[in-house]
Amino acid sequence: MVAFRHTMGDGQGCKDHIDDEGRIVLCQIGVVHSPLPPDSDKVPFQSFISDIAGSIEIFEEYEAGLDGIERFSHISVIYYMHMSNKTKLSTVPLMEEEEQGIFGTRSPSRPNHIGISTVRLRGRRGRELDVLGLDMMDGTPVIDIKPYVPKVDLVKGVDNAWLMRKLERVGKLDSRKLDEIF
Amino acid sequence: MVAFRHTMGDGQGCKDHIDDEGRIVLCQIGVVHSPLPPDSDKVPFQSFISDIAGSIEIFEEYEAGLDGIERFSHISVIYYMHMSNKTKLSTVPLMEEEEQGIFGTRSPSRPNHIGISTVRLRGRRGRELDVLGLDMMDGTPVIDIKPYVPKVDLVKGVDNAWLMRKLERVGKLDSRKLDEIF
Repeated sequence: MVAFRHTMGDGQGCKDHIDDEGRIVLCQIGVVHSPLPPDSDKVPFQSFISDIAGSIEIFEEYEAGLDGIERFSHISVIYYMHMSNKTKLSTVPLMEEEEQGIFGTRSPSRPNHIGISTVRLRGRRGRELDVLGLDMMDGTPVIDIKPYVPKVDLVKGVDNAWLMRKLERVGKLDSRKLDEIF
Repeated sequence: MVAFRHTMGDGQGCKDHIDDEGRIVLCQIGVVHSPLPPDSDKVPFQSFISDIAGSIEIFEEYEAGLDGIERFSHISVIYYMHMSNKTKLSTVPLMEEEEQGIFGTRSPSRPNHIGISTVRLRGRRGRELDVLGLDMMDGTPVIDIKPYVPKVDLVKGVDNAWLMRKLERVGKLDSRKLDEIF
C-alpha cells in the first residue's frame, strides 16, 4: 500500500487548540488505508464484527509516538468520519424500531463526526500499523491512537496480563471501589 | 450546580468540518461539572478508579440528542483536555520505568488533547447527566457522548442484556469470527 497523505492542506506545523470562537481545532496525525472505498455502502456497522484487514499510516512527524505500541494486542483509533456530513439529533438505530437521541447511538450522523474503533494490532512496519477489524473507509483522517486496555472488563484473547499485574500493585486500585462503580 | 457555558465564544451555529489547511474543526456540545478544579493535581489517572461524582451538561441546542440515553448504565464521554497544552512524542507512563511512544500511553501530553472516559450514568435531569467516576476537571469541553456497550468483553454490573439479545439476532455476528478477531 502506498503511503500518501490525504489531508486537504499539508498539515505541517499544526497545533491543536481552542480558537477565538470556542471551536476545538485538531490536527490530522495519520490516515487509514482500507479496502473500503470512501463511498462504500458495505461498511461493517461496528469494528467488532469486521474481519477487514488494512493499515493505519502515521505521518513522519509523529512516528516516534509509536515506539513500544507493539506491546498492545488491540488499539483504539480515534478518527474523523470525513465522508459523513449529516447531523441529526435523533435517529432509528440499527436493529431497533424507535427513534433515539443521537448520543444514545453510534450513528455517524452526530454533531461532531468523531469515530472510535478498537482494532487488533497485527504488526508494525515503521510508521505503518497493520490492523484487523476495520470499519473505517479508505482515507479516513486519524486523530489519535490509544492502547486498548480492558480494565474490569475481559476481552477474549487480549493479552494484558503484564499491565493488570502492574495495576494490582497500585494502592488506589481498591476492588471494593470498583464494585461500587461497575 | 449552576448551568453555564465555558466556551471562549458562544459556539452558536458551529458546524464541524475539515478546514482549508486540513485541520479538523469540532464544536463544543457541553461541559463537565466536576469537583476537580481546572488546576487540580489530584485527578485520578483513570476514570475506572475514580469515585468522583459530577455532571455533564449538554448545551440547549443538543438536548434532543439525549433522548433515551437513560437506557445505558455507562456512557463514554469524549472531551478536550483544555488544561493540557504540552505535547510529547514519548513519555514514561505511570507505573513504568522506560520511555514509551505517546500512542502506547494514556498520557494527556498528546498531539491532539482528546480524552475518553467511561462513567456510570446515574440519572438525567433535563440536559444534565449525573455521573460517577469522573477523571475530568471542572469546565472540560465535551465533544461527544457515546453509549458504552461492552461487546465480547464483560463489565461487572453493566446491564446491556437487552442489546446483547438484539446483537445475537444479527446474522453478521458470527462467534467464530469473533474468536479470530479477539
